[in-house]
Amino acid sequence: MNGVLRDGAVTVGGNARQQFHDARGYGTPADGDEIRLARVEAAHLLLRGDIDAVVDNGDGLDFAAFFAASAAADERFPLRFLVYADLRDRGFYLSPAREGWPGATDDERTDLTVAPRGTKPGAGEPAHRVVVVGERESIPAADLAGLTLAVVDEESEISYLDTSEPAFDGGTSYSPPADITGALIGDRVVVWDAPDGFHERGFYGQPLEAREATLDGVVQLSLIEAAALAAEGQLVVPDADDDSGHEEATLTATGVAGEMMPDSQATYTTIRERGREVDGERFDRRLAVYRALRDRQVVPKTGYKFGADFRTYNTVESVEALPHSERLVRVVAADHTFDPRDLSLDVRLAGGVRKRMVFALTGANGEIDWLAVSRLTP
Amino acid sequence: MNGVLRDGAVTVGGNARQQFHDARGYGTPADGDEIRLARVEAAHLLLRGDIDAVVDNGDGLDFAAFFAASAAADERFPLRFLVYADLRDRGFYLSPAREGWPGATDDERTDLTVAPRGTKPGAGEPAHRVVVVGERESIPAADLAGLTLAVVDEESEISYLDTSEPAFDGGTSYSPPADITGALIGDRVVVWDAPDGFHERGFYGQPLEAREATLDGVVQLSLIEAAALAAEGQLVVPDADDDSGHEEATLTATGVAGEMMPDSQATYTTIRERGREVDGERFDRRLAVYRALRDRQVVPKTGYKFGADFRTYNTVESVEALPHSERLVRVVAADHTFDPRDLSLDVRLAGGVRKRMVFALTGANGEIDWLAVSRLTP
Repeated sequence: MNGVLRDGAVTVGGNARQQFHDARGYGTPADGDEIRLARVEAAHLLLRGDIDAVVDNGDGLDFAAFFAASAAADERFPLRFLVYADLRDRGFYLSPAREGWPGATDDERTDLTVAPRGTKPGAGEPAHRVVVVGERESIPAADLAGLTLAVVDEESEISYLDTSEPAFDGGTSYSPPADITGALIGDRVVVWDAPDGFHERGFYGQPLEAREATLDGVVQLSLIEAAALAAEGQLVVPDADDDSGHEEATLTATGVAGEMMPDSQATYTTIRERGREVDGERFDRRLAVYRALRDRQVVPKTGYKFGADFRTYNTVESVEALPHSERLVRVVAADHTFDPRDLSLDVRLAGGVRKRMVFALTGANGEIDWLAVSRLTP
Repeated sequence: MNGVLRDGAVTVGGNARQQFHDARGYGTPADGDEIRLARVEAAHLLLRGDIDAVVDNGDGLDFAAFFAASAAADERFPLRFLVYADLRDRGFYLSPAREGWPGATDDERTDLTVAPRGTKPGAGEPAHRVVVVGERESIPAADLAGLTLAVVDEESEISYLDTSEPAFDGGTSYSPPADITGALIGDRVVVWDAPDGFHERGFYGQPLEAREATLDGVVQLSLIEAAALAAEGQLVVPDADDDSGHEEATLTATGVAGEMMPDSQATYTTIRERGREVDGERFDRRLAVYRALRDRQVVPKTGYKFGADFRTYNTVESVEALPHSERLVRVVAADHTFDPRDLSLDVRLAGGVRKRMVFALTGANGEIDWLAVSRLTP
């Protein structure tokens, strides 16, 4: 059986409607008993030997020739075909997301729509809207939630990524008091006399410990933690840029608040400036995400060891009985585009440590769109 | 007992020599029974309560005050102290890598030297030369092999990374024949009639498969694989930029080599140009690394799923009995500097999938320095 190429689609007659469309979900019905096949569908039937050739201007093209001609007509054809064939081989019915084909969507990025297991294309809402991406293309992060990425690597292997909007269900109830005093030393803030539960229940900072140490209650805060606390009016830090640095430290170490103690607002400004010195405008974005998570009673701690901005704990009751963190959060700009290699690395690592990878798309105004990405094994 | 700060070191008398130096490896002997302590050593003894105060110009400083004063005198002090205290607490003897202290080295980057377990500082070669790095600092990659990185994150947690020069012991014996013909389609090369063992034993490319497919022996090559084969004179590709693209594909599909068939050198040039179009100058570096690995009978395949350039197999006997890949290779420029967060991500991921992370520092001339980095749990 042959198909005929006309206006970018392949028409097949004979019993094609019954054999390919009705029985196996290829193509879309056309005149009479004919069906129209998109190029990827026709190529797949050629590869399987279900049709023998596609006739183009009188030439009969075999799979190799039709593949090359289709690639010349549409440079995205080879990648689309690889994904189409892979999902077909895994037993899915799927269609090109193209007007006139079943399951077509308005979303311009979608290349293929996958029907739910056990149903034909167009019978209901697609189970997956698949965006085909080459390893070297970049993927705009905005409005990605709900789409499935099929990333084709340079050796033509395909990985699938599922995207969604995560829900946060934090339950960390500790709230710090309003009178914490710290000293800004380098790019951290040392609280020499931390309030009860500050680290143990609120999971703020990191104790300064030495075996048989004589100092209790010394907690080091990151600049992000300190800035967030200051923004909430809970932390004050005497000016560390003053020449009499170590005398102030002595002062704060003994817990004596002098008359010149700056307020939280001044502290917030000072710490934020230091943060911007070391981290640039990223500091503001990270701070916005930190505060948004704390607002949701989720505890963010540094995700450095995982190459992320934060790892997060939904519910911390005590550091002694700390659960595993559930998510890794990477903070990106609102107009971020993913490099598939980096995205793959993040998602792979998160999966390997049984956490969910979440991106916080953070605008200059502090507004955040959350995007969870995980590997999908179809 | 008090110490006295003088010229950036702290002198302690009394029984300090016996109690701190001889018994516990702190400091370096000075006049009479005195010892001199570096600031990190003095701070550690203060924190432990082994000395009560450090006298500076008549003022007695407690730990908090001495810590702040030392941070003001040397901005790297807080990080160095955190690492010093952490390793001390883990039971190591260590010294500042400073002239006059035991185990001092010529290497400017080294901050601390760690004596082998069970020995005192200076008794022999250091077990580790530790470079202290803040999370936000960058680390030049050149000549790093043999050093231990102690990276302090923003929350003052420390991770240790071991660096070394890896040895390659490849044993993949397959060698491709000299007469392979392919078609350049998009950013891959399709070999329609691959020689025996090309994929199965040489692990070149990726078969084009479909369930019940009728085409055997179709293998897709990445541009890197194709360029490396062409460079060895093993692959030719007719000019794919010609208008008659699909006819050529038909030609090559049938295995007929026409009179106009270009040679491997021309093929190499064409593929390299395509590679540079999609990957820029990185293509040349990656190609140099690919070829260097194949030269060592090691098989590089894409490391995309791990966010790396390559994953490598020392010995492939057949794809059916494929071992796990042993290494992940990231190709970087010879003057590359690591961002500790990225480095941490790479090493963590590699460890999680039981592979070794290797960086290939590749110069414009194709010369490669190899650097293996792994996590170290002291």
